[in-house]
Amino acid sequence: MSSDNADSLVASDDPNHPANLICQLCRLFYHNGWVTGTGGGISIRKGDHIFIAPSGVQKERMLPDNMFVMDLETKEYLRMPKSLKPSACTPLFLAAYTNRNAGACIHTHSQNAVLISLLYDKVFTIANIEQIKALPKLTEPGYLGFFDTLTIPIIENTAHEEDLKDSLEQAIIDYPATTAVLVRRHGIYVWGETVWKAKVYNEAIDYLLELAVKMRQLGIPPDGAIGSERNTRVV
Amino acid sequence: MSSDNADSLVASDDPNHPANLICQLCRLFYHNGWVTGTGGGISIRKGDHIFIAPSGVQKERMLPDNMFVMDLETKEYLRMPKSLKPSACTPLFLAAYTNRNAGACIHTHSQNAVLISLLYDKVFTIANIEQIKALPKLTEPGYLGFFDTLTIPIIENTAHEEDLKDSLEQAIIDYPATTAVLVRRHGIYVWGETVWKAKVYNEAIDYLLELAVKMRQLGIPPDGAIGSERNTRVV
Amino acid sequence: MSSDNADSLVASDDPNHPANLICQLCRLFYHNGWVTGTGGGISIRKGDHIFIAPSGVQKERMLPDNMFVMDLETKEYLRMPKSLKPSACTPLFLAAYTNRNAGACIHTHSQNAVLISLLYDKVFTIANIEQIKALPKLTEPGYLGFFDTLTIPIIENTAHEEDLKDSLEQAIIDYPATTAVLVRRHGIYVWGETVWKAKVYNEAIDYLLELAVKMRQLGIPPDGAIGSERNTRVV
Amino acid sequence: MSSDNADSLVASDDPNHPANLICQLCRLFYHNGWVTGTGGGISIRKGDHIFIAPSGVQKERMLPDNMFVMDLETKEYLRMPKSLKPSACTPLFLAAYTNRNAGACIHTHSQNAVLISLLYDKVFTIANIEQIKALPKLTEPGYLGFFDTLTIPIIENTAHEEDLKDSLEQAIIDYPATTAVLVRRHGIYVWGETVWKAKVYNEAIDYLLELAVKMRQLGIPPDGAIGSERNTRVV
Repeated sequence: MSSDNADSLVASDDPNHPANLICQLCRLFYHNGWVTGTGGGISIRKGDHIFIAPSGVQKERMLPDNMFVMDLETKEYLRMPKSLKPSACTPLFLAAYTNRNAGACIHTHSQNAVLISLLYDKVFTIANIEQIKALPKLTEPGYLGFFDTLTIPIIENTAHEEDLKDSLEQAIIDYPATTAVLVRRHGIYVWGETVWKAKVYNEAIDYLLELAVKMRQLGIPPDGAIGSERNTRVV
Repeated sequence: MSSDNADSLVASDDPNHPANLICQLCRLFYHNGWVTGTGGGISIRKGDHIFIAPSGVQKERMLPDNMFVMDLETKEYLRMPKSLKPSACTPLFLAAYTNRNAGACIHTHSQNAVLISLLYDKVFTIANIEQIKALPKLTEPGYLGFFDTLTIPIIENTAHEEDLKDSLEQAIIDYPATTAVLVRRHGIYVWGETVWKAKVYNEAIDYLLELAVKMRQLGIPPDGAIGSERNTRVV
Repeated sequence: MSSDNADSLVASDDPNHPANLICQLCRLFYHNGWVTGTGGGISIRKGDHIFIAPSGVQKERMLPDNMFVMDLETKEYLRMPKSLKPSACTPLFLAAYTNRNAGACIHTHSQNAVLISLLYDKVFTIANIEQIKALPKLTEPGYLGFFDTLTIPIIENTAHEEDLKDSLEQAIIDYPATTAVLVRRHGIYVWGETVWKAKVYNEAIDYLLELAVKMRQLGIPPDGAIGSERNTRVV
Repeated sequence: MSSDNADSLVASDDPNHPANLICQLCRLFYHNGWVTGTGGGISIRKGDHIFIAPSGVQKERMLPDNMFVMDLETKEYLRMPKSLKPSACTPLFLAAYTNRNAGACIHTHSQNAVLISLLYDKVFTIANIEQIKALPKLTEPGYLGFFDTLTIPIIENTAHEEDLKDSLEQAIIDYPATTAVLVRRHGIYVWGETVWKAKVYNEAIDYLLELAVKMRQLGIPPDGAIGSERNTRVV
C-alpha cells in the first residue's frame, strides 16, 4: 500500500467523511469543555475501517491529515501519520466495536462524569427524568421510558489508559443495557450504532450527569421515586 | 396536492420564513443547553399553517426540508418529510394554538426548569425581580410590573409526551395569566403571540428559573417580600 | 430637519460609529447573559449626540436603524425610529452624562448583580483582589490598587425604571468614587469616559460580583483582610 | 533600527507568527473568562525575540501591530508601539524565559485560580485525576501519571505586578517540577516549552482548579487517596 493510497483514506470533500467529522466534533466537544488540555478522544467506524484521532493533540485544532486508520479485522494500521502517536484509547474503542458492533465511540473528560464517579460507587443510576428517553434499551428494541432507571457502570481507573480494556469489556458484558461506561476520576466512554447516535447519547448522558450533580447539591436523590423530592425539598 | 407543492411550503429565501426560523432558533437553543440530545422542540404558526420540527433529530443540524406542516383547522399534515417522525409535542403545541391563539410555541429541557419543578409543588412563583417585567399580564393588556408575582403552573409528567395534552390544557384554563407551563422532571412549554414574543418570554422565564435556583441555594426565597432577604442573608 | 437627515445620524460604514457599536456590543452582552429577554440597555455619547438602544427589543438583533438619537443640551430627540419606544433607561443614562461627563453607559440584568444586591445592604464592597485594579479612582487620577476597597452603592428598585433617576443621581453624588450603581433585584448601571472604558469597567465589575458570590458560598468574606480566608477556609 | 524594520517584526501572513498567535489566543482566553476587563496577559518567544501583549488593552481586540518586542539577551525593546504601555507582567514572563527556557508564558485572572488561592495555603495539590497526565514531570522526562500528585505553589500578591518577580522566581527555584505559579487573590502564571504546550498546560491546570473547587464544595478532598471520597460522600 502506497503512502498516497493511505492519505486518500482521510482526504474527502464530504463533510460527513469520518476524517472530517472527527475534526468537526472535536471542535464542538472542545468548546463544551469535554476535551480541553488534549483530553478525551473519538473514533468513527466506516465499514471495516476505524478512524481514530491521535494521542495528545489539541482536539480543536485537528486536521483530517492527523487521523489514524485501522483495519477492524486485522487490527493493523492502514495509516499512521508521521510524528503522531496512536491514541491510548484505541483498545477501548475496539472493545465497543467488537463487543457491541458500534459505529462510533466518544471519550470525554467531562467534569460532570468525574464528579459523578466520586459521588457513586459501582453504578450511577437516575430515574424519572424525561431526558432518559433519549437513550436506547439495547436488550430489546426501542428507547428507555420516563419511568425507567438509567444505569451506567463505573470502573476503576488504571495508570495506563490501555489497561482499562479488560474492566471496560467486563462492564460491557455485565451491563448489556448500557451504552456508556464511567471511569472513576477520569471521564466517560460512550458509543452508538452510528456517530450521530453516539453523539446524541453522549449529550443526553452528560445532561443527566450534570443534572444529577445539581440534584445532589440540592439534597434530591437522582434515582428517587417521583414525589421523593418533597421530603428532601429545600423549603 | 403534489409533492412539489408540499416542498414549496418550506422552501424560502426569507430568513424569517418559519421553516428557516425554526432551524435558526434551534441552533441558538442548542448552544444554550436547552435542546441537547434531541430534547425539546419548536413550532411556529403562519396563518393556518403550523410548522413543526420533527421528532428525535439533532436540533442544531435541522434543515428547512425536515419540517412538518399541519393545517390548524383540519389537523391534517400538509407536508410529512419521508423517514422522519412527527413530534410528540404536536398535541401540546396545538393546545397553545387552539386555546391561546399563539403564534409560536417553544419546548425545552432546560435544567433550570427541571430543577425548579423539583423544588416547587403545584406552582412556581417569583416576585419583585425586574426581569418579571418582560412577561405579559394576559388577563388584561400590558406587562407584569416589578411588584407583581409571576406564577407558572407545574404539571406532572406522563410516560408519553402526547398524554400531557389534557393536563396542559387544564393548566392553560386554570391559569389564564400564564404564558408557560412547567412539566415536572421534564422541562417547560412557553408560547407567545409571535415567535419573537415566545422567544423573549422563554428567555425571560429561563433567566428567572435560573435566578430562583441560585436564590434558593443562598437561602433567599424567590417570592419573598422586598427586604425578606435580610433575614436569610448569608452574612 | 428632514427624515433623511435624521437617518444619516445612524448610517455609517465605520464599525466604531456609535450606532454600529451599540449593535455589536449588545450581541456580545446577549451571549454573556446580561441582556436576554430584552433586558438591559446601552447608550453611547458622541459630542452632544446621545445614541440609545430602543426599549423592549431583542438586544442581539438590533440594527443601527433602530437607534434613538438625542441632543444632550436640549434633551430633544433628533431621531425617533417609527414603531419603537424610547428606552426607559434614558433618564438614567442622562444622569451619567450630566453628572459625570460619561462617554457611554451600560445597563445589564446580570444575575451576579441581582444576587449581590440580595446579599448586601447599602453598598457592595470587595477588597484585595487583583481585578479591582481595572477600576478608576475617579476622586483622583489613576486606578484603584490591589489593597484598595471597591465600593458600589445599591439603590432600591422602583416600579418604573425612569423613577430610579433621583436615587441614582443621589448615589452618584454620595459616592463620587463610583463608576457604577447596583439596583436591588434589578441589575447594574456602569458608565465610563468612553464606550471602551465603560465596557471594561462593566466586565471587571461583573467578574468581581461573580467572584464575590462564589466567595460567599465558600464562606469567605469578599472584603476581608488578606489572610482572613484562613479562618473561614473550608478544609 | 528604523521604525519600518521594527514594524516588520510583527507583520506576517503566517497565522502561527507570534504576533498573530497572541491575538488569536487572547480572543479564545477572553471568551473563556480568563482575561476579561483587560486582565491577564501573554508572551511568546521566537528565538531571542520576546513578543508581549501590551498593558491594559482589551484582550479580544488586540492587533499584531499592538505587540511589544524585546530582545531576550539585552532586555531592550526592539519595538514599542506608540501610545501603549508595556505589560507589567514583563518581568514575570522573563523569569519563565530565563529560569526555565520557556517558549511562551500565559497569565490569566481565572476565577478558579483565585478561588483555589483562597482555599489553599502555600501550595495547591491534587491527585488521582486523569487530567493530571497532561502535565509534565519536568524534573525528569515525561508526564505525570494518574497516581501522581500535582503541586502548584501559591505566592502572595503585591501592590505592583512587577514586584512579584522575586517571589515568582523563588517559587520556580523551590518547585522545580512546577510549570505554573498561583498568585493569591490574583490569578495564575503558566509557561511551557512552546506556545502550544503552555496553552495545553494552562487548559489542563484550569480544568483541575475548577474540578478541585467543585470537589471541595461536595466535601471531597482533591488530593485524597482513591476511595477517600467514600467517607465524605454526600449520600
